[in-house]
Amino acid sequence: MSNPSLLILPGDGIGPEVMAEVRKIIGWYGANRGLNFDVSEDLVGGAAYDKHGTPLTDATMAKAQEVDAVLLGAVGGPKYDVLDFSVKPERGLLRLRKEMDLYANLRPAQCFDALADFSSLKKNVVAGLDIMIIRELTSGVYFGEPRGIFKEGNERVGINTQRYTESEIERVARSGFEMARKRGNKLCSMEKANVMESGVLWREVVQRIGDTEYPDVELSHMYADAGAMQLTRWPKQFDVIVTDNLFGDLLSDLAAMLTGSLGMLPSASLGAPMANGRPKALYEPVHGSAPDIAGQGKANPIACILSFAMALRYSFDQGDEATRLEKAVEAVLADGFRTADLLGEEGVSPVSTSEMGDAVLKAL
Amino acid sequence: MSNPSLLILPGDGIGPEVMAEVRKIIGWYGANRGLNFDVSEDLVGGAAYDKHGTPLTDATMAKAQEVDAVLLGAVGGPKYDVLDFSVKPERGLLRLRKEMDLYANLRPAQCFDALADFSSLKKNVVAGLDIMIIRELTSGVYFGEPRGIFKEGNERVGINTQRYTESEIERVARSGFEMARKRGNKLCSMEKANVMESGVLWREVVQRIGDTEYPDVELSHMYADAGAMQLTRWPKQFDVIVTDNLFGDLLSDLAAMLTGSLGMLPSASLGAPMANGRPKALYEPVHGSAPDIAGQGKANPIACILSFAMALRYSFDQGDEATRLEKAVEAVLADGFRTADLLGEEGVSPVSTSEMGDAVLKAL
Ligand SMILES: CC(C)[C@H](C(=O)O)[C@@H](O)C(=O)O
Ligand SMILES: CC(C)[C@H](C(=O)O)[C@@H](O)C(=O)O
Repeated sequence: MSNPSLLILPGDGIGPEVMAEVRKIIGWYGANRGLNFDVSEDLVGGAAYDKHGTPLTDATMAKAQEVDAVLLGAVGGPKYDVLDFSVKPERGLLRLRKEMDLYANLRPAQCFDALADFSSLKKNVVAGLDIMIIRELTSGVYFGEPRGIFKEGNERVGINTQRYTESEIERVARSGFEMARKRGNKLCSMEKANVMESGVLWREVVQRIGDTEYPDVELSHMYADAGAMQLTRWPKQFDVIVTDNLFGDLLSDLAAMLTGSLGMLPSASLGAPMANGRPKALYEPVHGSAPDIAGQGKANPIACILSFAMALRYSFDQGDEATRLEKAVEAVLADGFRTADLLGEEGVSPVSTSEMGDAVLKAL
Repeated sequence: MSNPSLLILPGDGIGPEVMAEVRKIIGWYGANRGLNFDVSEDLVGGAAYDKHGTPLTDATMAKAQEVDAVLLGAVGGPKYDVLDFSVKPERGLLRLRKEMDLYANLRPAQCFDALADFSSLKKNVVAGLDIMIIRELTSGVYFGEPRGIFKEGNERVGINTQRYTESEIERVARSGFEMARKRGNKLCSMEKANVMESGVLWREVVQRIGDTEYPDVELSHMYADAGAMQLTRWPKQFDVIVTDNLFGDLLSDLAAMLTGSLGMLPSASLGAPMANGRPKALYEPVHGSAPDIAGQGKANPIACILSFAMALRYSFDQGDEATRLEKAVEAVLADGFRTADLLGEEGVSPVSTSEMGDAVLKAL
């Protein structure tokens, strides 16, 4: 049997430097645990635009469709702000999500014990926090038509369309319920059914899937604005949250920030199973390309490393190896290793991106 | 000259009981400061539906158009969850906003010194917090067409339309800039211009209004997801924020929750000037109808009282009287008066809704 294949897309800003650390980890798994991957690398985002005039070439897109998993760093940067909407770095990422049909975006918001003090929230509010947000990723206002800027009389109008079909809601609802079964058996679905008909349909379909297929999972519904409030007030009331693309964008970033350490948080974007049974999958850190610190060896590689841990778990059925990697990260943090984003304690001086990667390697 | 007119719409849940306290305050201003209002009262939301089968009758709508200001309590409740979308309590409120053309929703998020401990955020993060969110309130996905649940092949699809014209963006941008001039001269505009064309137009128009009409105001732009993060991380970086209807719904609720005391926060919704120079205006607390505690005398009337203070300031040009009322509220809090939502300190027992109202009266 041939090795599973990985496509690495470092992207822009700090993407390449954090990805370099992940490569070390991948190497370690080959050398020490007999887990070998066929790794290829390509361009996405601004980096692809600079070379090819497009944030994702068709060739890269085709490659992404063929591999067992894609690992992405980050896209975007102020340099590309002037570009036309259609070739902005983000379009490369959005094309990957859409064409690979990665409808379930798993965003854990977990507060690491050693880092609870970094949160802007009180320690008792966030210590031990561990929630999972499942965000729909291939539909809604991100992709709905019509969209664009149109002339209307003597002014322009900007239009986007929020749009969800029953089957789109069903499949991501199932992802939410399945995740709930693996965790605390509790799912909260968020929308604005009091204002938007797409939210009315969302709520109805999630309720039906719950009633008919997952009667054992405790299901609740919340308006997304109340969700933003409750995440801020007492996030531990939640276990698994399922929500749409746009609400998920805001709410998962909010949840990430509760933990106080954005540089720590991974994500997985999963689609339907391929012929080999593995889901289409893309893994990426939640943080952005952080152009202000790019190339300085200051970036925290852990979010990207933990994204590879998610790949081990969700793409390669190596839950134990994923846990091993997660434990190594926890150990390194407990030992006091801190990149610049995690400073604040007295007498601690920061380690560089590669020193952090090496520390994780050593802990493995 | 006849007295200015006020239409009171107590609505549902705790609406009537908090409004009863506001009536005492209105009475005080008549008796002691020579500020007399012609007050009328009517139904909105579930209360209107129960009596008339609609959450807002045409007669009430017409009255709202004629008065100098509307004061609203809250709408909604689980009893009405089963109602068809078109007659839900929220539709009454949305109709008022739309037909009165109340495009600028002012949502202060202010942390009261005496209450800083109630926040789930660290005291240093929120103490002294004072930001103002200007939310567009009459357009965007709340009102865009087409909307609804449609049949498509053999399934249904839920559709809403995000839609902003240049002039809609211009007028609310001006509200934002004007507010910034009255405060710290700093405005941050939020959208998702990296994903939505309506956000591209939003950003461009806000920038143009800034460049041409308010070059003295420091303008910045932020993606709404980053905005949710930054509000959580270090909210004091903001002074005035301007954003669209849906993002404003989530972000202003998030900002409100940062202060730790939702029962304290008022809001004003303003439209264009009427013939008498006063803006069309509706004032309401940020909190909802809280059906779980309705009718028990537990509700905190301060958000609604402070909404009346906003009315004094923005509709009746009585800034000094507004400040007097706000100071009275602060004094009452400093004296240790707490409704049930503000408990937590040892040895403090809660006062009732009407005791809180009386305390404010006394402080006046
Ligand atoms: C980069 C951007 C297009 C993206 C999004 O809006 O989905 C990002 O914010 C995210 O959450 O992954
Ligand atoms: C009650 C509801 C329709 C309303 C909204 O979504 O605008 C509320 O959440 C608000 O923010 O005033």
